Amino acid sequence: MTEEVDRENGNVRAFVPGHITGFFSPYEHDDPARAGSRGAGLTLSHGVTVRVHPAASTTIVLNGDPTSFAPVEGVLDALDVTARVTAETPLPVGAGFGVSGAMSLGTALAANHVFDTNRSENELITIAHVAEVEAGTGLGDVVAQARGGIPIRLDPGAPDHGVLDGIPTSCRVEYRSFGELSTVDILGGDTEQITTAGTRALDRLVATPTLEAFMAASRAFARDVDLLAPRVKEAIEAVEAAGGSASMVMLGETVFAIETGLTDAGYDAHACETHPPGATLER
Amino acid sequence: MTEEVDRENGNVRAFVPGHITGFFSPYEHDDPARAGSRGAGLTLSHGVTVRVHPAASTTIVLNGDPTSFAPVEGVLDALDVTARVTAETPLPVGAGFGVSGAMSLGTALAANHVFDTNRSENELITIAHVAEVEAGTGLGDVVAQARGGIPIRLDPGAPDHGVLDGIPTSCRVEYRSFGELSTVDILGGDTEQITTAGTRALDRLVATPTLEAFMAASRAFARDVDLLAPRVKEAIEAVEAAGGSASMVMLGETVFAIETGLTDAGYDAHACETHPPGATLER
Repeated sequence: MTEEVDRENGNVRAFVPGHITGFFSPYEHDDPARAGSRGAGLTLSHGVTVRVHPAASTTIVLNGDPTSFAPVEGVLDALDVTARVTAETPLPVGAGFGVSGAMSLGTALAANHVFDTNRSENELITIAHVAEVEAGTGLGDVVAQARGGIPIRLDPGAPDHGVLDGIPTSCRVEYRSFGELSTVDILGGDTEQITTAGTRALDRLVATPTLEAFMAASRAFARDVDLLAPRVKEAIEAVEAAGGSASMVMLGETVFAIETGLTDAGYDAHACETHPPGATLER
Repeated sequence: MTEEVDRENGNVRAFVPGHITGFFSPYEHDDPARAGSRGAGLTLSHGVTVRVHPAASTTIVLNGDPTSFAPVEGVLDALDVTARVTAETPLPVGAGFGVSGAMSLGTALAANHVFDTNRSENELITIAHVAEVEAGTGLGDVVAQARGGIPIRLDPGAPDHGVLDGIPTSCRVEYRSFGELSTVDILGGDTEQITTAGTRALDRLVATPTLEAFMAASRAFARDVDLLAPRVKEAIEAVEAAGGSASMVMLGETVFAIETGLTDAGYDAHACETHPPGATLER
């Protein structure tokens, strides 16, 4: 009975960390569970909290506003349920923080609990990953968000296919967003330059899996792929001039820095921490 | 400089959750990175905190007492360093809580940070797993403790070889220990019965990856393998008579229950929670 009450009043919720990618290379495959990306990024203590309630038809509310989110609908379809999904996040949407992946994975975790659909963690991660790939909204966020910490995506795809590692440390992360970039547009365009630069960055990080090497590989990637908006480039240079370390969030018109890089350079910035646990169901 | 101070005064530490195994089947292999076990268990918010300081020769202190711990020495050897290792835990030692695995993994994570040995998470998990297998002190604790939550060990071995999944939920865990069992003695004996029962339990859990199925599979395993000490058997039956769910910790003369099972049955018990994050480096 206590369980029933919890489910009704929404005390059971999923928390999924935000995820910013420092560099990546996309990998296409007809099987969406095998498609994805290689790369590395930071998962963040700023994330998305998702609650799911049974409903006759599916509705999605983000920060109080009704919205549509194809991958969230894909997750509910895969579990063969309809629900009211309520999500809250302090993160900007469409700015490269993996909000879409977080909503998808959070919906999978919470719905599995509410509807007793009896899937394992890997099965729920797979469902969310496939929904993201099919919607064209992301390639590597879900598996990174499930692991937490500072994930390295060695091989692409859902848990049955992908291979993850991680950098064994934690840090403070600052970020400042100037606007949106469309993941769909960029991933739909010519990605050869991205693949070449992303592969080089990953080789570099695997040789020395440290935070410093991650930042250096990310900066090199951001320059190589020629996606730097003027305000992002200016901010990265200002952080470096102040002795810090910053790079561009892939894919958003957003800059991130470790420790106090952005505030030291005089920017107003949001601050959080890397998030070792990854996605969790909270009661 | 701040980093140097942190290292000197020991503020950087690793926390590794305890791990109780509900059922398992051992898997031998000449390559210790491929050896291990299949099975499932609960990682616990009660765990081991490990600090590492450079020293001319290696010493190990557990809860204030100098001790020797072959797998911890194996980890430091693999990283080619010597250190003073200081560990603290509220968990009983030798009672099936994975204290040995936690000390090994915690030492690997903390030493990698202190000595800048630049290993990845998977490399550190592998070093700790191999040290445990070679010392004969454990087969599956390290990989489970690295993942956190309620890990299912589908295939044995370190990250390059093993396959993990998880039950996507969390719960309160109660435990009561009556004494020690020697992992080395039991794993060195006839394990055919254990392998048969462990394989059956894993098949059952994979079909329905829920907490209830885990407890049912664990109880069936405990009965099948004929390791139940009288006081453990009595406690499990008392918890079940009171409407709860309990089983035996593998391998210890220890009983565990979910939620308030042991206290409801009138036992004095320690209480903690499952631990979603797994092992972490804390600053």
